[in-house]
Amino acid sequence: MKISAMKKFKPVFYPDSVAVVGASKDARKFGYLCLKSLVNSEFQGSIYPINPGSSEILGLQSYPSIKSIPAKVDLAIIVVPAELVPSVLQECSHKGIKGAVIITAGFKEAEGFLGAELQDEARHIADNADIKIIGPNTFGMFNTHADLNASFTPLLSTMPQGDISFVSQSGGMCHTVSYLALDDGIGLDKVLSLGNRCNVDFADILEFLGEDLHTRAIAMYIEGIDNPRSLVEAAKKVVRKKPVVAYKIGKSQTASRAAYSHTGSLAGNYELYDAALRQAGVLMVNDSVELLDTAKALAFCPPAQGRRIAFCSPVAGPGIVSADCGQGHGLTIAEFSAATREKIEAILPPRTFRMNPLDMAFARDLDMWQEILMTIINDPGVDAMLIFFVKQEFFDSIIGGVVELLIDLLKTYMKPIVMCLISPRDIFVKEKAKLQKNRIPVYQTPERAVRALAALVKYSKMRQSSGIQVLQAQPTDI
Amino acid sequence: MKISAMKKFKPVFYPDSVAVVGASKDARKFGYLCLKSLVNSEFQGSIYPINPGSSEILGLQSYPSIKSIPAKVDLAIIVVPAELVPSVLQECSHKGIKGAVIITAGFKEAEGFLGAELQDEARHIADNADIKIIGPNTFGMFNTHADLNASFTPLLSTMPQGDISFVSQSGGMCHTVSYLALDDGIGLDKVLSLGNRCNVDFADILEFLGEDLHTRAIAMYIEGIDNPRSLVEAAKKVVRKKPVVAYKIGKSQTASRAAYSHTGSLAGNYELYDAALRQAGVLMVNDSVELLDTAKALAFCPPAQGRRIAFCSPVAGPGIVSADCGQGHGLTIAEFSAATREKIEAILPPRTFRMNPLDMAFARDLDMWQEILMTIINDPGVDAMLIFFVKQEFFDSIIGGVVELLIDLLKTYMKPIVMCLISPRDIFVKEKAKLQKNRIPVYQTPERAVRALAALVKYSKMRQSSGIQVLQAQPTDI
Repeated sequence: MKISAMKKFKPVFYPDSVAVVGASKDARKFGYLCLKSLVNSEFQGSIYPINPGSSEILGLQSYPSIKSIPAKVDLAIIVVPAELVPSVLQECSHKGIKGAVIITAGFKEAEGFLGAELQDEARHIADNADIKIIGPNTFGMFNTHADLNASFTPLLSTMPQGDISFVSQSGGMCHTVSYLALDDGIGLDKVLSLGNRCNVDFADILEFLGEDLHTRAIAMYIEGIDNPRSLVEAAKKVVRKKPVVAYKIGKSQTASRAAYSHTGSLAGNYELYDAALRQAGVLMVNDSVELLDTAKALAFCPPAQGRRIAFCSPVAGPGIVSADCGQGHGLTIAEFSAATREKIEAILPPRTFRMNPLDMAFARDLDMWQEILMTIINDPGVDAMLIFFVKQEFFDSIIGGVVELLIDLLKTYMKPIVMCLISPRDIFVKEKAKLQKNRIPVYQTPERAVRALAALVKYSKMRQSSGIQVLQAQPTDI
Repeated sequence: MKISAMKKFKPVFYPDSVAVVGASKDARKFGYLCLKSLVNSEFQGSIYPINPGSSEILGLQSYPSIKSIPAKVDLAIIVVPAELVPSVLQECSHKGIKGAVIITAGFKEAEGFLGAELQDEARHIADNADIKIIGPNTFGMFNTHADLNASFTPLLSTMPQGDISFVSQSGGMCHTVSYLALDDGIGLDKVLSLGNRCNVDFADILEFLGEDLHTRAIAMYIEGIDNPRSLVEAAKKVVRKKPVVAYKIGKSQTASRAAYSHTGSLAGNYELYDAALRQAGVLMVNDSVELLDTAKALAFCPPAQGRRIAFCSPVAGPGIVSADCGQGHGLTIAEFSAATREKIEAILPPRTFRMNPLDMAFARDLDMWQEILMTIINDPGVDAMLIFFVKQEFFDSIIGGVVELLIDLLKTYMKPIVMCLISPRDIFVKEKAKLQKNRIPVYQTPERAVRALAALVKYSKMRQSSGIQVLQAQPTDI
């Protein structure tokens, strides 16, 4: 009988108890930072610092060895020098530990043979004992839904819960994406760097995240893959359940060499990987901002029934930009029905463009917004809406009402609504948070909004044409 | 004798006195907002609100008409209804006013013939009286170097002084770019929306900004152009003095129609404009974030002598991403000399990639950073550096030193240094501000840094091959 990926990875991502092997009082050491991360994330299970020389670290009782822990342990975070890792894994095996995050570097990615040998030894022990290893050579991982920050970056303990998971071959890219999410005011679900992928690779994690109900969208950053076929096969299955977005590098030879030295795998032929992943239904992006933007739209929005977009903006220029940019990304500018046009012409004066992209410069009160947007979302020729709002004093009084209106429209009509909020970041913070909490993704520029919406449309279309009922997030799920 | 553009536009951008025609006490009216903008920007000259019904607005003595103002006036900000604009311009003419910002809409862009007729009439009066008009149908403009916010957005009065000017055909895009700049902690120089371009078009403003010493880089957003030849000719001249970056929309037919309705010009054949502008030496971009990012690198950095970039990162992944992305944008990954490699190998352990893109994960103290970066910038095979920094506790103690180091290296070697700072925005705010003040542009993601650096290299190369001494910003100018 096949064991579910959830069962295999539960000790890693949802542990009841965690040991930090190599915990330290020295604030500059990984052993300190990892323990601090765990404590800061308010992990509710047991935490066991392991250090033969201390009896207490960060206020927690410390143990000289794994075997001296007087209870069951699910996960070991390992930060001891590479040479000691195999023996630590032996101890884990004897203790019945089934999950390990090996932060330590100096394995397959290092110059010379020793590192590769150590990694082989570690894998051998782990495989025999059914231990799933994240790493080695990783910043670690975190799972907001388990209050678990098993990384060397305590700051990431502040990450709110969210429904986008990110699996990466680089800790630096985990930081990049996580910090973008923090700035954006959205949370993330699970974020992990696979590092050298000792016995856990992209395919395994994809399968697990496919089963994990907290994850609504999966983002990936890929350098080199040893077993592309298994990734493609896993992706094919997972995209039937939830969207997968990937950022694959390795177009350049030199970058590919550096990637080998980074996590021990050649980046391989970029075009082949790109084509195979696309064919598997993975949405490919070329930019870290776009990676998160796209995952956000996919995680938040209901599916789009088609590509016909209504662009509605109180500032004409950005509306025009988005319509222009949208056509370049496969969206079409919805043609309003005669009835819709008639209604809009009755509301707005003939001083602006009253077709799509609609110029709402003269819609200064909430009633006009309501009438116009309800008319448009009701139009059977409109599959999704991109709504703009701009920080200008004469619109300040209606922002609260516009937020409520959009949330209502989304719930009533179940067509995707995306907002482009043209404003300094420290203004409309609450309004933005409310929109995003209610599954209306918000972006700061027209191009970012359009690219994310285009990916949403593409995924929705793919799911439609594969004949499978779309399982994307529904606002009613909240 | 040809009158300099500076002389023609001085009354508009550097006025000694400004009248607001149609000033109002009603906080929802343009006439109130424009006056508030002007007051908030701490404009040092005289301000004359014009309103026949009030004797005082916002604490300023108000006048019934332009002719009743007891002193010379340089600039009129006009917010009266369109029908009244020609007569106001007549008054301006009699008063000797040479500059006008016409906020009012309802001219050539509006449906019906009346608007176009009104605009013709306005132009006729203005041309006869040598009045330069920004607009009509504009949000206005601001010039931080004159403490002048002549727009209907008081928030923009908070913009710090900077050296990037932005000329746009859309007020919405002015807000977009200005808010991005505010978030980025950089100032701007002049920002204006040309609106319907009654008698001032892109070519005129380009010529003016070319002469203005405050402007180091010019960014443009273009919808439709009536006289593309004059723009191309003006651009050709200006790019010899300072860099020009442009964002032209109009790839789609529908967007082009909307553009006509927006500011009264068809967007025209995108490919022709694009090719002509490129040939003139204008750097073309396709995204509003990239527009500002690029202008920033061009305004801040000294020229690059070539395209060979050193990528140095304490987190390997983003370094690899940037190298990979850089090759796609025409940059090459610098090959370090044998001497450089030898020195680096003596400093860094053999556990990471010690070629370019350089993995500095083990450079945990400032001395190592200093030795490594000085070695690399000294390498004659390196034309520019992209340096990464990441928010992680074990690097926190060196950020201050790294900032000083980079500033020193820039001053000493005069090779462009660009930083990618992977951090939440509310951390390292002071450090980022210090770097940018000292002409090291900072970006939040590897791709943004690379695209901006690629544009800098492109412009430097173009200037070199045209045999003209590059007049780009020099750090010593500060």
